[in-house]
Amino acid sequence: MGQKILIIGGVAAGPKTACRLNRLDPEAEITIIDQDNLISYGGCGIPYYISGDVSDEKELRNTSFHTTRDESFFINAKGVTVLTRTRVLAINRNKREVEAENLDTGTRKSIKYDKLVITTGSQPYILPIPGVDLDGVFIISDLHKAITIKERLARGEISKAVIIGGGAIGLEMAESFADLWGVTTSLIEFMPQLLPNILDSDFAGMLAKHMRDHGVNIYLGEAAQSIEADLNGKACKVITANREIEADIVIMAAGVRPRAQLAEDSGLLVSKFGIVVNNRLQTSDPDIYAAGDCIENTHLVSGKKCMAPMGSLANREGRIVADNLAGIPSTYEGWIGSFVMKAFECCVGGTGLSYQTAKAEGFDADYVISAQSDRAHFFPEQAVIPLQMVFDRKTRRVLGLQGFGPMNDAVLARIDAAAALIAKGGTIDDFSKLEMAYAPPFATALDALNATANVADNKASGRLQTISITDFMAWMDNLDSHPDWVALDIRHPAESEMFVKKYGARWLPVPYVNIRQRYRELPTDKTMIIICDAGTRSYEIQRFLDYKKFHSLVLGGGFNCIRRIGADWWPSK
Amino acid sequence: MGQKILIIGGVAAGPKTACRLNRLDPEAEITIIDQDNLISYGGCGIPYYISGDVSDEKELRNTSFHTTRDESFFINAKGVTVLTRTRVLAINRNKREVEAENLDTGTRKSIKYDKLVITTGSQPYILPIPGVDLDGVFIISDLHKAITIKERLARGEISKAVIIGGGAIGLEMAESFADLWGVTTSLIEFMPQLLPNILDSDFAGMLAKHMRDHGVNIYLGEAAQSIEADLNGKACKVITANREIEADIVIMAAGVRPRAQLAEDSGLLVSKFGIVVNNRLQTSDPDIYAAGDCIENTHLVSGKKCMAPMGSLANREGRIVADNLAGIPSTYEGWIGSFVMKAFECCVGGTGLSYQTAKAEGFDADYVISAQSDRAHFFPEQAVIPLQMVFDRKTRRVLGLQGFGPMNDAVLARIDAAAALIAKGGTIDDFSKLEMAYAPPFATALDALNATANVADNKASGRLQTISITDFMAWMDNLDSHPDWVALDIRHPAESEMFVKKYGARWLPVPYVNIRQRYRELPTDKTMIIICDAGTRSYEIQRFLDYKKFHSLVLGGGFNCIRRIGADWWPSK
Repeated sequence: MGQKILIIGGVAAGPKTACRLNRLDPEAEITIIDQDNLISYGGCGIPYYISGDVSDEKELRNTSFHTTRDESFFINAKGVTVLTRTRVLAINRNKREVEAENLDTGTRKSIKYDKLVITTGSQPYILPIPGVDLDGVFIISDLHKAITIKERLARGEISKAVIIGGGAIGLEMAESFADLWGVTTSLIEFMPQLLPNILDSDFAGMLAKHMRDHGVNIYLGEAAQSIEADLNGKACKVITANREIEADIVIMAAGVRPRAQLAEDSGLLVSKFGIVVNNRLQTSDPDIYAAGDCIENTHLVSGKKCMAPMGSLANREGRIVADNLAGIPSTYEGWIGSFVMKAFECCVGGTGLSYQTAKAEGFDADYVISAQSDRAHFFPEQAVIPLQMVFDRKTRRVLGLQGFGPMNDAVLARIDAAAALIAKGGTIDDFSKLEMAYAPPFATALDALNATANVADNKASGRLQTISITDFMAWMDNLDSHPDWVALDIRHPAESEMFVKKYGARWLPVPYVNIRQRYRELPTDKTMIIICDAGTRSYEIQRFLDYKKFHSLVLGGGFNCIRRIGADWWPSK
Repeated sequence: MGQKILIIGGVAAGPKTACRLNRLDPEAEITIIDQDNLISYGGCGIPYYISGDVSDEKELRNTSFHTTRDESFFINAKGVTVLTRTRVLAINRNKREVEAENLDTGTRKSIKYDKLVITTGSQPYILPIPGVDLDGVFIISDLHKAITIKERLARGEISKAVIIGGGAIGLEMAESFADLWGVTTSLIEFMPQLLPNILDSDFAGMLAKHMRDHGVNIYLGEAAQSIEADLNGKACKVITANREIEADIVIMAAGVRPRAQLAEDSGLLVSKFGIVVNNRLQTSDPDIYAAGDCIENTHLVSGKKCMAPMGSLANREGRIVADNLAGIPSTYEGWIGSFVMKAFECCVGGTGLSYQTAKAEGFDADYVISAQSDRAHFFPEQAVIPLQMVFDRKTRRVLGLQGFGPMNDAVLARIDAAAALIAKGGTIDDFSKLEMAYAPPFATALDALNATANVADNKASGRLQTISITDFMAWMDNLDSHPDWVALDIRHPAESEMFVKKYGARWLPVPYVNIRQRYRELPTDKTMIIICDAGTRSYEIQRFLDYKKFHSLVLGGGFNCIRRIGADWWPSK
């Protein structure tokens, strides 16, 4: 008889552990226990099931070869026993057994193990506000909830939706409602930006504008204070300090917490980030492993402990646990924060640390934003993909990358390449030299990622002085707060004209190609903010103006980025 | 006065050097000399100009902000002097001057330099066969030739085209003719596959089938022996050992050679791969730098010297030369062979070494092929992207990656990520853990690249025994050459049925989900080739059959890859 392996939790990390272990050690007797009847599903696909992109929930539970991953599939195809609708009540570590209850019959039994694997995942955080228990308030915690939501949509019961939380799930749910179902959708985020801690404010601003342009009402810096019921006791309204928003459905997407109570109750070491594990994914009890959303993770760039509730990591971690159970000494060191997200016709992604997070973690961080084309500028389908590179001034190590672009894989390609280098401690110079594949339909000769690294090199080497988009926006919002500056708009006159008309003497239009001839017209007693569409030409001009002893700042990312963020001060034509 | 910098060659590396140097050292007096009147153009865009994707050749010479990069642009915007239609006849290194001739007036003059930069590029290799000088035979060496070809196409003078050479330029030209202009297009490649040395045969096979499916006649392993003329002295026919192919136009795309004669004549060290440079891109004369197609490059995976005629490298190298001229000690170590290519509705790419090349370079190389989805299998736009990973058995270092997929950036994302890790000496385990960004519209939870690394891990660890597609194809072509094997087809009966009908006892259909129940039916005295669509399920089954003491081989990449390559033995329905 082989070793008895018991796995608690059957969604992602659990099944991955079970299936790989069976391949590595066919003698092992492997059992997965899950309290649900639906197991091994693609939870990240729930928003696409609700939107209708995925027509049937079964597709989320199917293999790529169209077989449903249910109990009989696991035993027949994988040699793994699954006990569904079974809840583990307690772990008796001394006896190496768990106490489990069948939720349909109420029957309890003890199940022995040689090694136990805890893959209990995460649970949504429920805001402590009145009304969260009302009918019509949903968390996206499992497939059942998703099925109910879709039924209500299909019956036409939902015409107004409110999402609480501007993280990835909240945003994906907002798109699901607004895009395919035409539901009037509002999203409330307590923090002043979308995707807080993950994106920096400029990129979050681009995302917010794009969501708003597609009809989603976004309220930032507003907390949901209560959810009110109609006469039937159904949620009908979400109240914030500033407004009341009507709702037929309220989605609570305020983040998740590790589901680690069972581990904690059985005396395992658990931190606020989850079950504490070593790099073999062993808990404080060497006979018990843990993987997936429920474990405490390590951010490899900051070195700090954190949560990392990602389906992609759950699969990687499950594989590591299986290896160790089979005697292969694989290790898991942590994650670096790679993510990507669809938002209507756009894509936003990142890896590593944001600038704000890097500063908070004590790095001597700086960043640049560039707005380069994703493919040759003469190729018909080209689009600009703003990229932000965060780096450490002292070591020149790249700490993070963010990207925003059209809904294709252009941003993904740059994020994935960056993830590979960041994981290896790559510096600005590594990024500058990184050999991205090139042909005009796919990239520019010097890829957007290389070009962004070159901008970072210029900044880190003191050759480029920038003003951040945030600061520039503030200066524009309150023109007289900084009296001694003028905009040097080097774009084509057709582009600068309406700004000159609105801003008069504060807006100097001198086209890029004319600067070398006309620089003597420029003021020597003012700071010039050089403005172009991407920041690239502005840098060239700054180098020339530095040489001629003028003082200037480059608006990194240029007006391309500002247009994407949107600004009240933008002149109307 | 600043240093006098003279640059010979004004297409890619030269202008890059000039423009960056001006930014780093605005005092420098920089002059570019080029024998052509058209400079600083996107040569890689020529096939897209000919196809019509790019409507005007000016777009290839424009900046991204629609200004033409001509002499006046360079002096006005960049502060760089350009002498066009000027040929350098000789370099007098003792006097630090060049002898140059104005090609329009015949005037000669000497031009002094403090530092010289040679960026003379490459020249097409002209096959030594009769007829190469005929009217109607073109090389794609510059924009003038491209303009002439397009004029002939637009005048309707071309209805039959023959391309000699199955490298990237030949393939892109074939697509240009066939796709938009409906020209009957044939391509002749001397070697037995397309993109020889860059792709391995399976992926080259997928590419060839896709080209053929789009109407391009492809003749492999055939040399062009002569080009024949019609009565007007115009090329009308290409002759090989096997056939005569009618042609209104013949494109000679048989590769390029470094344009290094001038360097050689002036006594600089030149190898068969180009001008010899150190890692500061200095030639054997420390006052002379070189960059772009004309230099000898180093392949960073093999460590071997080679040519690397790539527009993307020319730009990187130009930047390094500028740095060194300005006193910044940047270094260039070499390239790793990243490439990507559009072919009608598909994309093919790679980085690092192919398996064949890795073997030839002395590595203890092995490879695996997988056929995974580019995004979640339940997401509507998902497609399978076959990937091939080449690795060293001893060190587990990944040596190369190849990919084939639909015409989007899915393959690019995997190639670029692989390039980053390969450049850092990444191992199979690094690839397995690489944190690719995940959301269902962009990737699978375990990305196709990670999954391919996991297959490589299984292979390298001795847990996976495969038969190569090449070998399997040979066995199928000659069934009796290996009498003791049977196919174990674990796909759905609807898929295996027609094979059973054609191949009888040699084809055992046992669906994947039934193997554990029915394995006792399987032969113990034969090698079973396990067949599924991707190789993944076959691996699972092999692990089980190994445990039960059967002997089997997995067809890596499965029938998905074979369908893409095409096979005569495929049964008709």
